[in-house]
Amino acid sequence: MDECIFCKIVKGEIPSTKLYEDDDVLAFLDINPANEGHSLIIPKKHHEKLNDIPVETLKKMIEVVQKVSKAIEKEMKPQGYNLLMSNGECAEQVIPHAHIHIIPRYNTDKFKFTWTHEVYGDGEADKIKEKITKSL
Amino acid sequence: MDECIFCKIVKGEIPSTKLYEDDDVLAFLDINPANEGHSLIIPKKHHEKLNDIPVETLKKMIEVVQKVSKAIEKEMKPQGYNLLMSNGECAEQVIPHAHIHIIPRYNTDKFKFTWTHEVYGDGEADKIKEKITKSL
Repeated sequence: MDECIFCKIVKGEIPSTKLYEDDDVLAFLDINPANEGHSLIIPKKHHEKLNDIPVETLKKMIEVVQKVSKAIEKEMKPQGYNLLMSNGECAEQVIPHAHIHIIPRYNTDKFKFTWTHEVYGDGEADKIKEKITKSL
Repeated sequence: MDECIFCKIVKGEIPSTKLYEDDDVLAFLDINPANEGHSLIIPKKHHEKLNDIPVETLKKMIEVVQKVSKAIEKEMKPQGYNLLMSNGECAEQVIPHAHIHIIPRYNTDKFKFTWTHEVYGDGEADKIKEKITKSL
């Protein structure tokens, strides 16, 4: 993808602080971190969202996610860490090249996520299950 | 883990709406969803956080995450979707048994995450890189 920022980072046309790379996967520091060490793991080939990534590439990505996450835990000693992946504009995906965030967390930081915790009415969960499992 | 809610769900001692299971991985509906179809993918064996999960199990988990995510996309037709994994209390992990959320998203929903987008000063990113890559 000629105009994709992350593809340009992969090709070295835009500078980045790379942590790890192999033939398929690249890990680098988020340029605007929520906290120090906030990292992104991407497939080198352009895929827009989770569901577009070939499963073998995805398995390689999650292996790198864990590798980098372990290194962050050991070296940065955060109090916790989140993985976050946004797929689609309404899920707050800004760069349309699939990426998994590793976000080191501290009790005092400003990262927050909030949602309403809904409750399914009688039989509703089973209907959703029926729907989803049709395609499983 | 005798007292772990998710271990009890695995053993069928607590009811859940199961979407998928195999020898290693279980997917079920979050009982308090952010949106309908909000699902959790867990390792059947008790591991607390991402970094505790054996890599082979983790690869199986991410394969199930994508499988369920594709089914949700096809059947629920959300406008987007997030993956979220909270590791540690300060990252808002409530149940200390590793789990990956798939959250279907809609423009009108109430799921939000916010963070400050910091900027590294001169040389700071390289110092962080040096630190993290020591353990890679």
